[in-house]
Amino acid sequence: MSATAPIRVGVLGVGRIGGMHAALVAREVPGLALAAVYDTDGAAARTVADELGAPAAPSADELIGHVDVDAIAIASSTDTHVDLLVAAAATGKPVFLEKPISLDLAEVDRGLDAVTRSGSFLQIGLNRRFDPAHRSVRDAVVSGSLGALHLVRITSRDPEPPPLGYIEVSGGIFLDMTVHDFDMARFVTGSEVEEVYARGEVRVDAAIGEAGDLDTAVVTLRHADGTLTLIDNSRRSAYGYDQRVEAFGENGVAASDNPLLHTGFRRTAAGTTGAVLPHFFVERYRASYLEGWSAFERAVRHGDEPPVTGADGRHALVLGLAAWRSAREERPVRTSEIG
Amino acid sequence: MSATAPIRVGVLGVGRIGGMHAALVAREVPGLALAAVYDTDGAAARTVADELGAPAAPSADELIGHVDVDAIAIASSTDTHVDLLVAAAATGKPVFLEKPISLDLAEVDRGLDAVTRSGSFLQIGLNRRFDPAHRSVRDAVVSGSLGALHLVRITSRDPEPPPLGYIEVSGGIFLDMTVHDFDMARFVTGSEVEEVYARGEVRVDAAIGEAGDLDTAVVTLRHADGTLTLIDNSRRSAYGYDQRVEAFGENGVAASDNPLLHTGFRRTAAGTTGAVLPHFFVERYRASYLEGWSAFERAVRHGDEPPVTGADGRHALVLGLAAWRSAREERPVRTSEIG
Amino acid sequence: MSATAPIRVGVLGVGRIGGMHAALVAREVPGLALAAVYDTDGAAARTVADELGAPAAPSADELIGHVDVDAIAIASSTDTHVDLLVAAAATGKPVFLEKPISLDLAEVDRGLDAVTRSGSFLQIGLNRRFDPAHRSVRDAVVSGSLGALHLVRITSRDPEPPPLGYIEVSGGIFLDMTVHDFDMARFVTGSEVEEVYARGEVRVDAAIGEAGDLDTAVVTLRHADGTLTLIDNSRRSAYGYDQRVEAFGENGVAASDNPLLHTGFRRTAAGTTGAVLPHFFVERYRASYLEGWSAFERAVRHGDEPPVTGADGRHALVLGLAAWRSAREERPVRTSEIG
Amino acid sequence: MSATAPIRVGVLGVGRIGGMHAALVAREVPGLALAAVYDTDGAAARTVADELGAPAAPSADELIGHVDVDAIAIASSTDTHVDLLVAAAATGKPVFLEKPISLDLAEVDRGLDAVTRSGSFLQIGLNRRFDPAHRSVRDAVVSGSLGALHLVRITSRDPEPPPLGYIEVSGGIFLDMTVHDFDMARFVTGSEVEEVYARGEVRVDAAIGEAGDLDTAVVTLRHADGTLTLIDNSRRSAYGYDQRVEAFGENGVAASDNPLLHTGFRRTAAGTTGAVLPHFFVERYRASYLEGWSAFERAVRHGDEPPVTGADGRHALVLGLAAWRSAREERPVRTSEIG
Repeated sequence: MSATAPIRVGVLGVGRIGGMHAALVAREVPGLALAAVYDTDGAAARTVADELGAPAAPSADELIGHVDVDAIAIASSTDTHVDLLVAAAATGKPVFLEKPISLDLAEVDRGLDAVTRSGSFLQIGLNRRFDPAHRSVRDAVVSGSLGALHLVRITSRDPEPPPLGYIEVSGGIFLDMTVHDFDMARFVTGSEVEEVYARGEVRVDAAIGEAGDLDTAVVTLRHADGTLTLIDNSRRSAYGYDQRVEAFGENGVAASDNPLLHTGFRRTAAGTTGAVLPHFFVERYRASYLEGWSAFERAVRHGDEPPVTGADGRHALVLGLAAWRSAREERPVRTSEIG
Repeated sequence: MSATAPIRVGVLGVGRIGGMHAALVAREVPGLALAAVYDTDGAAARTVADELGAPAAPSADELIGHVDVDAIAIASSTDTHVDLLVAAAATGKPVFLEKPISLDLAEVDRGLDAVTRSGSFLQIGLNRRFDPAHRSVRDAVVSGSLGALHLVRITSRDPEPPPLGYIEVSGGIFLDMTVHDFDMARFVTGSEVEEVYARGEVRVDAAIGEAGDLDTAVVTLRHADGTLTLIDNSRRSAYGYDQRVEAFGENGVAASDNPLLHTGFRRTAAGTTGAVLPHFFVERYRASYLEGWSAFERAVRHGDEPPVTGADGRHALVLGLAAWRSAREERPVRTSEIG
Repeated sequence: MSATAPIRVGVLGVGRIGGMHAALVAREVPGLALAAVYDTDGAAARTVADELGAPAAPSADELIGHVDVDAIAIASSTDTHVDLLVAAAATGKPVFLEKPISLDLAEVDRGLDAVTRSGSFLQIGLNRRFDPAHRSVRDAVVSGSLGALHLVRITSRDPEPPPLGYIEVSGGIFLDMTVHDFDMARFVTGSEVEEVYARGEVRVDAAIGEAGDLDTAVVTLRHADGTLTLIDNSRRSAYGYDQRVEAFGENGVAASDNPLLHTGFRRTAAGTTGAVLPHFFVERYRASYLEGWSAFERAVRHGDEPPVTGADGRHALVLGLAAWRSAREERPVRTSEIG
Repeated sequence: MSATAPIRVGVLGVGRIGGMHAALVAREVPGLALAAVYDTDGAAARTVADELGAPAAPSADELIGHVDVDAIAIASSTDTHVDLLVAAAATGKPVFLEKPISLDLAEVDRGLDAVTRSGSFLQIGLNRRFDPAHRSVRDAVVSGSLGALHLVRITSRDPEPPPLGYIEVSGGIFLDMTVHDFDMARFVTGSEVEEVYARGEVRVDAAIGEAGDLDTAVVTLRHADGTLTLIDNSRRSAYGYDQRVEAFGENGVAASDNPLLHTGFRRTAAGTTGAVLPHFFVERYRASYLEGWSAFERAVRHGDEPPVTGADGRHALVLGLAAWRSAREERPVRTSEIG
């Protein structure tokens, strides 16, 4: 690939998140271009294709194999991820895969084996690693300015639950929501997790409980280096998307606070009032999605290691499975019990 | 124009600011499309045109008159504004005109007369009115929650001076920089300015002084309703683009603070550290540019009044001219002295 | 007791915390006066007595029984609390008792039984309930403005560990430090705790571990109403005394952030810098100590219930004992297992 | 005076501010003791004397001359300041004098001449210099970390106007309120003021205007080194005592923001809400009064120069007089015109 020609990305799946990726690739990220899109919903594919000025491929296989497609983004429904990953890996083309790789550990391993065999490039879409604020927390740890880490706190609260239909196929709160926080805990500490204790409740919507899921959860992680991580999650935060990370160590603390929607405020005799938080991930994490794609572009072009690996995706799943076992068996679970 | 077809905008001048407008129109604002671009620098025009998938027009006149151009954005150099405005107004097409209209009051009046005669739509690109934080200040005033206004404070500091060549044709700090703050003072208070006292210094770069300009300035305005406004400006803020507005009234205060580049921070025994401000207007005012164009789209489509009028642009110029006279004559100047 | 004469308080124990109470009573709280002090260290007692202009009593019994002592504050070492409480209760005089009542549940019950039998007034010195910021969190819950509670987060980190000699008699981190947070969890939620999961580490100082204690700990509480509380503690926070409470419910969140030592800050190209936190409880909780004593004064004068009861002190101890059992047995422990 | 014996301070005038000084001296500042108080209102003097355990002197002269009075605090009404200062200076005892020295420049000079002749120590009660947040701004300037100063902004807004009777003898807003800000401008910049432009209005209460005063004012100062200072004042701030200082220079900005009454806040779908500001100077500036007295104690004990000199008090008056002339003559006034 030439040093200056854009990397042409084909996008599989152009629903909410896939459509966002297609638009970022087409318009916002220097060095990338949108080669084609595909979706099982052909009308949706055509709409996105027209909007972004790229062709809609007739099938996933044709997109994957097309000579004008340099790299492949997989943003289709989770149950299709591994088959598409295996097919893409067979071409040796670089792949960007939305999280989670799969809800099934054996399936994850099938996909990652295919990548290993082909020696191809795989980046998992755990976007929060690229958020400038969260990254500043991890940079503080890596720089040594905090000294040895002692405690990490992660808050992650969505503004509203997804549709029940989605919840039923999502793997539940620990695989769908907390998975981001598990990855953040590993990213910030740089230390693997040995033990997971999870406690959840149904506080937001009884229907979520009837679907076998939880909507409110807290998790304690013990890392190999002795650091303790606390995570809290909710499916419904009335004031917007609450996303905070805090790393506390022997010399101090580094944290990422929430931005407000804007910086206007008012003071009267009744007190001070300001704005709410950004509503959800599209508003809050725009910079992280851009930077994730830029990191993909740089790594692919320079032959570097992926900034978020398949192993990272696998670890996050293991922690999610451990959390479910902990919640069900009401005891701390060691990750070595999972796989 | 149909209710659903996009308004096709032709953009005159695609330098830094014009290129930004062209990209916003082409990609980001629902209901708008980029019809064509023109620039006296043909190569620059072709580059932008290729990037955004729109034709480069052979001349300003052809762009203005083209049947596929529904509306015209003028973002060329200031000295060409009025001629282009007059030509555009003659077609009756809606016009978006970057500030300042002109540095010469008679020229401004020539342009605005043409708009009046044609009955066409003219929106001035005083973008800060659309910033959500500044707007929240004005909304607090309009809502009556602050009661009668007493004091307004506006801080506006650029990260670095423009090139000396630009400074020489810019009209100087009061016409180039403070003009935004003059408009903000009128916008926030809703009251015209009767008196201007300006005091400036050369603190940043002696070459700016040698070019006859100032780089550090403070201005006191007295509004018709008795409100006092204080403005401070600098051409060089080491920590980024500092943009704050504060309105103080009988029941309280409303203000827009600076956002930080991100929300990460660190605490050690040495204190708390956080990020800098956004570097300059492209980063800081992205939302305002988007909303300015959305407001243009809505107003044109619904036949509403422009959200920022030619008269607003003219008032800002009058205040800038009064400030220069005040600084030179070392006395408060009444706006009625200017015209 | 007349409506206007001050309530004359005798203070037992004038070490660091007792001396602070004596000074508050003597100088700062309207309606209270210092009647006398006593300490087993007679020289210390005389120094405080001279400084504050009150007599040093020759014995605890004489102070408790003296006709000019209207009320008794017990701030001596923990192992003396219950005997002094029983003696004070026998007089029927109101008692202010520093936390913890005792490290032994049977001893607590002996003391509380004495209070019950005498019908006297007992207020426990769990001062954080009176902090205006934490109280605003609880007020938000009580007001109903947050709706049903879902999650509570409490951070409590001391600037430095106490001397090892103290640690050895303190009951350990869960009885000495977390006890405040257990009380805060009950205070904020208004719901009893049914289950405790605690996980701790020795991260600050190996000597603390050798003394059988932990210095870094996290606790998960499940309340009777389904609310989950997360607590994190550290014995050493390099940036000062970190004290935060957050209550998250169906309609929003209320939180108390840390004040900074002062509100000065600086911005340069390297970022924004500000002050550290207040160093420790004397600086951070001055307002809470004052308000705790004012509440004592009001309740005693008007015959009201104590604002922090003996039962509150007992509950906090039960939770501390449950936390220790959880940490040792590596499982969630139900409070009904403790007593 | 021995190195360890307290400096015994006699306080003249124990109204609101004098009573506060007497209490600070008696109870809060190590190394100081209250020797005696005097007030023309004998009952007020006796109440304060009893409360603080010090004698009430029969006359100002007896207090000044008493052998057990080491130092003298003058906090009586402004019109008595200079006579008392002259009498105190004659004894050679150190003097702490509340601002303003006098409203009349000739009187100020009479007082300062007496101090000069006696070689005695005089500290003016311009307390804001000792506020930790404002001081951090000045420290940033002195440290050189901001580089050359360009702009200073000072906001000072009282929660409510004083009684009309007081306004009539106060010298008006520029001598009573802005005088603190004039001193702050000199303190922060370290540069004398050469030119003053003041503009005021009556916005708060027409009765203030009828008394010949203003209640809303803005001032522009030009310092000898070219720095420009902007000051804004109001007699009524609905949200509490608003006190901010900001120094902007070539390398950055240092500022003191307002503390809030407490750090609790709430977020709902309607936005974020927090506390108001401290109500007035007693709450906001407690630390500054304490530190001002500690600085007095240290300087007197060690024979150092006063931290706030009579010349500082005189300069502040000159600026206030220049501001009044500017406001009345509607032009910038050079301080050399005043004296």
